[in-house]
Amino acid sequence: MKPVRIAGVGLTPFGEHPNQTSRDLFAEAAKAAVADAGVPRSDVDQLCLGNFVGDVAERQGHQAPLMADAAGIDAPATRFENACASGGTAIRGALRAIRSGEADVVLVGGVEKMTSLDTPHVTGALAMAADDLFESRTGLTFPGAYALMARAYFETYGGTHDALAAIAVKNHANATVNEYAQFRSEITVEDVLDAPTIADPLGLYDSCPVTDGAAAAVLVSEAYADDRSVDAPVVISGSGQGGDSLALQDRSSLCRAPATETAAAEAYDEAGVEPEDVDVVEVHDCFTIAEVLAIEGLGFYEPGSGIEAAASGETTMDGDLPVNLSGGLKAKGHPVGATGVAQLVEMTRLLRGDHPRSDVVSDAQTGVAHNAGGTVASATVHVLQVEQ
Amino acid sequence: MKPVRIAGVGLTPFGEHPNQTSRDLFAEAAKAAVADAGVPRSDVDQLCLGNFVGDVAERQGHQAPLMADAAGIDAPATRFENACASGGTAIRGALRAIRSGEADVVLVGGVEKMTSLDTPHVTGALAMAADDLFESRTGLTFPGAYALMARAYFETYGGTHDALAAIAVKNHANATVNEYAQFRSEITVEDVLDAPTIADPLGLYDSCPVTDGAAAAVLVSEAYADDRSVDAPVVISGSGQGGDSLALQDRSSLCRAPATETAAAEAYDEAGVEPEDVDVVEVHDCFTIAEVLAIEGLGFYEPGSGIEAAASGETTMDGDLPVNLSGGLKAKGHPVGATGVAQLVEMTRLLRGDHPRSDVVSDAQTGVAHNAGGTVASATVHVLQVEQ
Repeated sequence: MKPVRIAGVGLTPFGEHPNQTSRDLFAEAAKAAVADAGVPRSDVDQLCLGNFVGDVAERQGHQAPLMADAAGIDAPATRFENACASGGTAIRGALRAIRSGEADVVLVGGVEKMTSLDTPHVTGALAMAADDLFESRTGLTFPGAYALMARAYFETYGGTHDALAAIAVKNHANATVNEYAQFRSEITVEDVLDAPTIADPLGLYDSCPVTDGAAAAVLVSEAYADDRSVDAPVVISGSGQGGDSLALQDRSSLCRAPATETAAAEAYDEAGVEPEDVDVVEVHDCFTIAEVLAIEGLGFYEPGSGIEAAASGETTMDGDLPVNLSGGLKAKGHPVGATGVAQLVEMTRLLRGDHPRSDVVSDAQTGVAHNAGGTVASATVHVLQVEQ
Repeated sequence: MKPVRIAGVGLTPFGEHPNQTSRDLFAEAAKAAVADAGVPRSDVDQLCLGNFVGDVAERQGHQAPLMADAAGIDAPATRFENACASGGTAIRGALRAIRSGEADVVLVGGVEKMTSLDTPHVTGALAMAADDLFESRTGLTFPGAYALMARAYFETYGGTHDALAAIAVKNHANATVNEYAQFRSEITVEDVLDAPTIADPLGLYDSCPVTDGAAAAVLVSEAYADDRSVDAPVVISGSGQGGDSLALQDRSSLCRAPATETAAAEAYDEAGVEPEDVDVVEVHDCFTIAEVLAIEGLGFYEPGSGIEAAASGETTMDGDLPVNLSGGLKAKGHPVGATGVAQLVEMTRLLRGDHPRSDVVSDAQTGVAHNAGGTVASATVHVLQVEQ
C-alpha cells in the first residue's frame, strides 16, 4: 500500500476554552498545521473532519464546510463520525482520498467543544456512543461500561485497581512536559486509589477528563511531496479499521477488543511490520482499563498479560515500549472528535524529533496510533514510520 | 477513473414509521439490497452510512456499528455526515474504499428517523445544517433560507411562484406509481398556489415533507463482479463533491450553487461525459427553487433559464430531460441521511429497467444523481451508466 506523507501538524491547547467555539478552536489547529506543512492553503484539495457531539453541544451539524471556512480552505469537506474514533476515521478518509488518486493534499482534523455542557449533559452526550435502546436507557454510562469491562478482565485474567492505577500515574508523568496537555501535574498510586469511585472499580483518576480542543494535520501524496520538495519525513505506512457490535451484550467477551485486533492486523499488514517492530505507541486510554485492552489488542502483550506489564513499568518512558508519551487521553485530555488526529500529531512530532518527549525515543523508527469508539465498537490503527 | 458496479439496491417505503426505529428501517433496506445483489453477506468488507439527525432524534450517535449489527454485517463501519448530503457523501466513501483497493464489496446506506420529533423540534434539528451562530440563532430556518434564495433568483433572473409550482406538480405526478413514495397523489398548480405560505414565496407544496426511511446499495469492484459473475449492469463512472461557505452571508450569490457546479465538473470529467450526454436525472429538490438551482448547477440549463425550462415542461416525464422520475424529495419524501443513497437506488432501477418509470427512459444509458446539504454548502454528483 502506497505510503502517504504527513507534511504538517497542529494542535490547540487541550482543556477548557470558554471563550472559543469549535470553529475558533479548529481555525487555530488548522492554521498551525498548514504553517508547519509549508504548503499553500490553496493546494488543499479536501477537508476530512472528525467530530462527535457538536449536534448536541453546539446545535451545529454540517460542521465540515463550517470548519473549511474557519480554516480558510476553499475545498469540499466531509464529516466522519464514529464516536470517540471519529478522528481516526477521518484520517482513513483522507488516506483513501489520496490513495484512490482523488486528492494530493488533504487537511484532516478533529474538533470538540464539550465543556459548555455541564457534567450530566456531557455524560448524556457521550452516552450517544452506546446503544440507546439497550444500554444508555438502562442507565449505563461510559464509566459504567468500562467498569464492567474491568470487572470482567479481573475475573477472567486477574488484576487489581492498584495495577490499573500505574497507568494513570504513568500518563500524568508523561504529560508534565506537554504544553498542550490538560493536566501537567504528577499523581501517585495513592491519589488514584483514594480518589472518589465513579463506577467500581474505576475512580476519578482512572477516567479521562472532559476537554475542548482541536487537532489538524496536512497529508500529502508521495508525488506531491516529491514535486514540491515538501519536508515530510514521517509517513503513514499502514491503516486499519475494525468494528464490533455496538452493545456490550452482543459481545462474546467483555475483556477483549476484537475491533482493535482487526484494525491492527490490517495496518501492520499494509505497513509490513510486526508488533515487535513498533518503538512507541499512542493508545486510546479513555479509562485505565482501556489502555490494557489496547496494548493487548495491538499485539504487544498476550491477552491477560497487559495489566501486569503496565503495572511493572514496561510501558513507562523508561520501559521497553513507551505508551502514551503525550499523556494519553487521561492527562492530555480527550476532545472526542479531535483525539484520533491529536494522536497522529503527537506521534509525528515524537518521530520527527520535535516533541518534548522525543529524547525518550530518539532511535524510534516506527510508531502506532490507536483510536477507539464507544466500548471499542469502532477502532482505527495507524502505523507511522520515519522515511529512511 | 475505474468504474464501480452497483450490484444491488434496496429501500424501505418512505413516510411515517411510528413503530420502527432507525435500526429496523436500515435492516429492511440493507436486507433488500443484499438480496438484490445476490452477494453473500459475509463478503461485505465495509459499511458506509449516511445519517444526519440521529443524535438529536434518537439520542443515537455512533450509528455505523449499530447499523452493521442491524444489517447482519460483521465489518468495519463508518458514518458520514454532511447534513442532507450525508448519503451522497457516504457513497463517495464507499467508492474511495473500492478505488483505493481497500475493499471489494461495500454496503452503502443511509437512514433517518424524523417523524418522532414534532414539527418545531424537527425544524430545529434540520437547522443544525445551517450556521448556528450566524443563521439558526437569528431565526432563519430552511424554508426561510430557500425563500431568500428564491427571492434573489426572481430579482436577478426573473421568475414567479407559478413557475416554481410546475416543479411540485411534476414531482407529484412522477411519484404516483412509486410504491416507495410518501405521496402518491397528483396535485395542481392551483393547489400549490393556494397552499399556506411557509416563507414567502415558498408554500407548503414547495417544500419536501418530513420523512422516515432507509436506503441501501451494494457496490462492488469490477474484479469482484467479474470473478463472481455478479449481475451488475449499472456502474458509477463518475463522482464529484463540492463545498461552499456554510452561511449564506458568505456567498457571492444566493442564486447559484457553485458546490453543485464543482461536483458536476468532477463527476463528468471522471465519467467522460458532458451534460448533453445525460438522459435522466435525480436532483435534490428539498424546495422547488432547489430543483431550479440544481438543473442549472449541473449544466443542463444556463443560469436563469432553468425556471422557464421547468415551467414549460422540459423536465417532465414527457420532456427532453426527465428530472426526478422517482417523485424527488418533494413527493417521494426526504429521510435526510438516506436521500443520497435513495437517489442512487432509484437511478439504478431506472437504468436497469425495473423501475415503474423505466418505460419513460427505455433507451437511457446515462443518469445523474445530485445530493445537496444545507443551502448547498455541500453537494455530491454521481454519474451512473449502463455497461455496454
